[in-house]
Amino acid sequence: MNAPHRPDSLPLTELLAALRETAEARDREGGHAAREKQLIADAGLLTIAVPREYGGEGAPWVHVYQTIRAIARVDAALAHLLGFTCLQVVSVAVWGSEAQRERYLRGTVENRWWWGNAVNPLDTRLIAHATGDGGYRLSGQKGFCSGTRGSQMMTLSAQDPATGKPVFGVVPTGRAGITVNEDWNPIGQRQTDSGSVAFDDVELRAEEVLHRSEAPPTPRGSLRTLVSQLVLTNLFVGIAEGALAEAREYVAKSGRPWIHSNVASAVDDPYQLHRFAEMRLKAVSAEALATRAAGALDRAWDRGDALTAEERAHTALAVAEAKVLAHRAALDVSEALFDACGARSTHGPLALDRFWRNARVHTLHDPLDYKLRDIGRFALAGVLPEANLYS
Amino acid sequence: MNAPHRPDSLPLTELLAALRETAEARDREGGHAAREKQLIADAGLLTIAVPREYGGEGAPWVHVYQTIRAIARVDAALAHLLGFTCLQVVSVAVWGSEAQRERYLRGTVENRWWWGNAVNPLDTRLIAHATGDGGYRLSGQKGFCSGTRGSQMMTLSAQDPATGKPVFGVVPTGRAGITVNEDWNPIGQRQTDSGSVAFDDVELRAEEVLHRSEAPPTPRGSLRTLVSQLVLTNLFVGIAEGALAEAREYVAKSGRPWIHSNVASAVDDPYQLHRFAEMRLKAVSAEALATRAAGALDRAWDRGDALTAEERAHTALAVAEAKVLAHRAALDVSEALFDACGARSTHGPLALDRFWRNARVHTLHDPLDYKLRDIGRFALAGVLPEANLYS
Amino acid sequence: MNAPHRPDSLPLTELLAALRETAEARDREGGHAAREKQLIADAGLLTIAVPREYGGEGAPWVHVYQTIRAIARVDAALAHLLGFTCLQVVSVAVWGSEAQRERYLRGTVENRWWWGNAVNPLDTRLIAHATGDGGYRLSGQKGFCSGTRGSQMMTLSAQDPATGKPVFGVVPTGRAGITVNEDWNPIGQRQTDSGSVAFDDVELRAEEVLHRSEAPPTPRGSLRTLVSQLVLTNLFVGIAEGALAEAREYVAKSGRPWIHSNVASAVDDPYQLHRFAEMRLKAVSAEALATRAAGALDRAWDRGDALTAEERAHTALAVAEAKVLAHRAALDVSEALFDACGARSTHGPLALDRFWRNARVHTLHDPLDYKLRDIGRFALAGVLPEANLYS
Amino acid sequence: MNAPHRPDSLPLTELLAALRETAEARDREGGHAAREKQLIADAGLLTIAVPREYGGEGAPWVHVYQTIRAIARVDAALAHLLGFTCLQVVSVAVWGSEAQRERYLRGTVENRWWWGNAVNPLDTRLIAHATGDGGYRLSGQKGFCSGTRGSQMMTLSAQDPATGKPVFGVVPTGRAGITVNEDWNPIGQRQTDSGSVAFDDVELRAEEVLHRSEAPPTPRGSLRTLVSQLVLTNLFVGIAEGALAEAREYVAKSGRPWIHSNVASAVDDPYQLHRFAEMRLKAVSAEALATRAAGALDRAWDRGDALTAEERAHTALAVAEAKVLAHRAALDVSEALFDACGARSTHGPLALDRFWRNARVHTLHDPLDYKLRDIGRFALAGVLPEANLYS
Repeated sequence: MNAPHRPDSLPLTELLAALRETAEARDREGGHAAREKQLIADAGLLTIAVPREYGGEGAPWVHVYQTIRAIARVDAALAHLLGFTCLQVVSVAVWGSEAQRERYLRGTVENRWWWGNAVNPLDTRLIAHATGDGGYRLSGQKGFCSGTRGSQMMTLSAQDPATGKPVFGVVPTGRAGITVNEDWNPIGQRQTDSGSVAFDDVELRAEEVLHRSEAPPTPRGSLRTLVSQLVLTNLFVGIAEGALAEAREYVAKSGRPWIHSNVASAVDDPYQLHRFAEMRLKAVSAEALATRAAGALDRAWDRGDALTAEERAHTALAVAEAKVLAHRAALDVSEALFDACGARSTHGPLALDRFWRNARVHTLHDPLDYKLRDIGRFALAGVLPEANLYS
Repeated sequence: MNAPHRPDSLPLTELLAALRETAEARDREGGHAAREKQLIADAGLLTIAVPREYGGEGAPWVHVYQTIRAIARVDAALAHLLGFTCLQVVSVAVWGSEAQRERYLRGTVENRWWWGNAVNPLDTRLIAHATGDGGYRLSGQKGFCSGTRGSQMMTLSAQDPATGKPVFGVVPTGRAGITVNEDWNPIGQRQTDSGSVAFDDVELRAEEVLHRSEAPPTPRGSLRTLVSQLVLTNLFVGIAEGALAEAREYVAKSGRPWIHSNVASAVDDPYQLHRFAEMRLKAVSAEALATRAAGALDRAWDRGDALTAEERAHTALAVAEAKVLAHRAALDVSEALFDACGARSTHGPLALDRFWRNARVHTLHDPLDYKLRDIGRFALAGVLPEANLYS
Repeated sequence: MNAPHRPDSLPLTELLAALRETAEARDREGGHAAREKQLIADAGLLTIAVPREYGGEGAPWVHVYQTIRAIARVDAALAHLLGFTCLQVVSVAVWGSEAQRERYLRGTVENRWWWGNAVNPLDTRLIAHATGDGGYRLSGQKGFCSGTRGSQMMTLSAQDPATGKPVFGVVPTGRAGITVNEDWNPIGQRQTDSGSVAFDDVELRAEEVLHRSEAPPTPRGSLRTLVSQLVLTNLFVGIAEGALAEAREYVAKSGRPWIHSNVASAVDDPYQLHRFAEMRLKAVSAEALATRAAGALDRAWDRGDALTAEERAHTALAVAEAKVLAHRAALDVSEALFDACGARSTHGPLALDRFWRNARVHTLHDPLDYKLRDIGRFALAGVLPEANLYS
Repeated sequence: MNAPHRPDSLPLTELLAALRETAEARDREGGHAAREKQLIADAGLLTIAVPREYGGEGAPWVHVYQTIRAIARVDAALAHLLGFTCLQVVSVAVWGSEAQRERYLRGTVENRWWWGNAVNPLDTRLIAHATGDGGYRLSGQKGFCSGTRGSQMMTLSAQDPATGKPVFGVVPTGRAGITVNEDWNPIGQRQTDSGSVAFDDVELRAEEVLHRSEAPPTPRGSLRTLVSQLVLTNLFVGIAEGALAEAREYVAKSGRPWIHSNVASAVDDPYQLHRFAEMRLKAVSAEALATRAAGALDRAWDRGDALTAEERAHTALAVAEAKVLAHRAALDVSEALFDACGARSTHGPLALDRFWRNARVHTLHDPLDYKLRDIGRFALAGVLPEANLYS
């Protein structure tokens, strides 16, 4: 099998260089990165998480996250888009019927679909009225629909007023009645296509309904949350590693020793050495825990339906631990980048603050405080994290 | 005496409200804040540091810095402009002759001059050729000339190739041959008017030459550096206090308890309480050391020419200590603001990242590492900081 | 007025040298420091907090705490004993009748009494049975009675089973039925004489009953808690300053540059300089907030019965802020001392770990977490700390 | 093959329980733990690092360090002794001739030798005079000879004044002229038998001379330093894990919610949960990097003489990174233990401060500052650590 997406393969190296080249400009402009999304699709990355039986790469999670991390080093927004396409693939894999897997996963391979996400049970503004044939008509709004703009397919959750329960489904993004709004304008992660989506009497066919909500969630089904949390985690690790790499290059190229430092070169400054050591230690330990958590996810994933709630919870704990370290590494390293590079590195067009802004936006997805509480409950009382929307 | 600039006086309160109202928009646009600079001038703040004998307020430094801090809470760029006008006033006060003080300080009172700064002996690209009558012709460039755009007067340093020594002087910003470039475009502190200035055969008259360089610098003369370092320090304190105030208001207005927090209101969340405590402690301790340092500066200032090098060095130590704490407080509080406010607070038009960007740009003025080294030398070996361009 | 306790006076200097000389040995032995307590009494320090109208020094709190801090630099346990004698003096001053103040405060001046503390309403094992003449008979136990061993007088709280209310009083430590147990054996603060006290049908006379509990506590009455919290705070500051001083002396005398450091002397090591800077910054900022809080206490104290609950609460906030910084400074500096001094400084007989052990024991008096919560409530919601046993 | 030392095997569990039972008392007494060293020998642990070809366990390093860590959780001093016996085994394995390996490694298996360490080329007080037959006579002193008291064999380094070069060798600890002094009395790690050793005309036979110094050190030969650094690292990790375990048990058994916490049980306190989360995160990330470094060492070890200098340097980098994290985890967790457990946990006989004291002593072996500098040089300039006595 050809594996074009290997982190060290030539296509990926070229892809990363191409993304890096326009990163500052695209951070400034925000909006939609159609050209760069095409490059990612061309590199064959949209199918890395699609199981082999449907023609995909079926890469282990450790490998998937390495790829996401590699892209996040140069562009955390596009890495998020790839991660979220993988996440929707997982949603179909764990919530879908065999026919749906065949249709949507093989379809992803054959058509190079980008996927958008409108699954968020906490946002109940989208209403699903049953049509009697197993399908629904959808009307209302969803916010923060990452990846939807420019996507071909999307997952969604809606509220059925008759049952009071959520409905999950898949629709083509281009279906009649769907409007993807161009209203995503944050301080960072500016090209994640995370605007709102309006639904005006949109058809959700019976065969498009995912059967997640019909039975109590299984440990395997709830792995989707962990896949999602590890996408975030690896974005953070990539941001930290990317900021460190930028700092190193900047100092090598433009660094000058401080006037009172008594050293000949910026790379000999004793305090710079300590700063880079601390930056590296944050990145390295975050990476180590992220890899450890991805390994745990691979083992849980391979257990299939035999996965127990306790095994799933131990995996969740490893994910939570990795996320906290990665969260802090991303913020700290992207701030320290400037101490390393000095006053001139704040020149606007360099946009070196994009690492911190990207980290800052994405680390607010769900609060660190409650991730720490989960970890603390285990550390203090042996209580494992419960499966929920964020754990 | 009427004291329109008291931090709690009505005019200042109104001024702060007016500056706050446009802060997000002006951060986005960058460039020159002509209207807001007029408001500051109208509030009578340009003369707070001008000695009373020349018609100014003659406020103690503790008071001057309170005012700068109050403005920095809502707009650190404009606070910097005011601080640098005070700094040029000090330059004339300590380096000028009696006639120069009379002309420039009284002139500041009578004409409400804003002052720009082109004093930077490390930037030697501006050449001064003596004209034989005590004056010079100036040609070349200066970078990072804070406050010059839109100013009426400016101080400058230039290099005399005949003597190899720097020349210091005062010129009206509008003098023939001076071009103030609009090339200041940083990631933060976007309206400090700190672009470059080009000089094309500009006249510097004999009576405009400041006599700083004729004799070894006195302890009193070198207080200018400490005035400058405390301007930075108080900008940082103001940024920390402003970020804390914004966070408090945002949470009060828009804060929602986390879904798994089991608290009724965001203000009862135990982790938010700890976060705000840490934010406040950073702001409070930075403020305490800044006030302590300003008091030390007042005492040193009042000693006049009797000030000894050792007294001056102890003042420098107190300033350095305050600067480190303020530096860290500004960065930490402006980052924590987002943890306090949550994901929605990253919406671009709110520009809540301006606190961090302002802090990040300004804290790179001179490296923390060497400020710490100065403090460490005293702590470990009792060696006091030497007077130099940054201490 | 003769002021033998001024921090810079000769007697105090000699006292500190004497205490320092035996500090290691007494830390090892623990138990009771009879000789050193006599030196403190001889230096006239037992009456610094006694109001002048009763013959005491009536020193402002800023001054009292400077003295406690100076002693804590060399011996935090003995500083605690002095602080707690001051605290009992305050208890009589704010809870006692005019006759009681006359008897106990003047008595302290005339007889150089050391005072012990058995006031702790949370420890309800001591029972007070009313005798019908306004007095009580006391039986039971009190724990953690700091300063009681070797004291002449003590304050106490007991539980009256008939009313369910606490009773407060003063008794001579030598009264029949009182047994001071020698059971204080902690890892640090080993000579604070904080063992338990047993009461076997002990007389508490009517004129010895303090009338604290008869009326709702006044803001002024509840200042006692703040006096107590600032005693702790200043012990912590003194520990930090003392550890820094020891580190400086040790490095100056015994420090050797690391084999790979390429510096000629330990005092030139760039990382040592940063370490000492951080140590000093912690000590300096803790000291600044402690002095600020002592000033606030002085102002509150001088308000007398006019003190409002809000003024009292603002004072409590300043005390809480100082306590947190001092807590952290004491722990951090006393740990960093070893990084500064190196492996040989862990030799047991040097007992350089006594700073950390003293800090560690004393910083657990009441939890930092809830001090932070108090500060956070004000910072987030403007809610001032309520008066209670720890605030 | 029977593997009696597996961390989860019954004998190890029993051993750990036995060591834990007397840990407080032995910390207090210091000196030599003859009985406990016998228990460790009885558990078969002295040969885990001896290659299988000489009858040992030949366990991979990952496994050896797991065992050391498990013991360090309950007693870091005894874990150090085991680690140093492994280190001397390595010294013979990499520096010795085939005959020496046969004699000393098989001897270790057959006789259950404990090994002491007097190899320290920086301590040049031990003089070796060549006897002409390939052997030497040794006279002088060595300090900090960990494990020597109570050992059967020891390695040593001495200075040959004729060549100015060091001599390395192995002698039985009981040889005539060797006096092991009982002068080890530190604040922590009190039973590592690290006193000084006096040599009075001691015979070092030709066949006892290790041939380390005859040729330039090979990458493989210099792995000994990394083995040593990872022993320290894993002691630190074990201390952190042990302190966390003690804190958890103490709170479960004796923890009480704070009076103002409004929670029913200490394990529900939100701030305790955060504290335990932070403690665990430090332990977990240190453990992850320690395991990663041990894996790197295993790979380097398995390369044998083919190991290149660059491969060795990458291993050294991983070891350095792990050591920094473990160093900090040990100190931080052992200090936080007390915040978790509260004031009563400072009772002397509990000796809960032994974790911090053990960590504090051992983390000073070589300074963190220069480990960070090594890491920084790679992070900033790609320069790998050079092989020396500490890297």
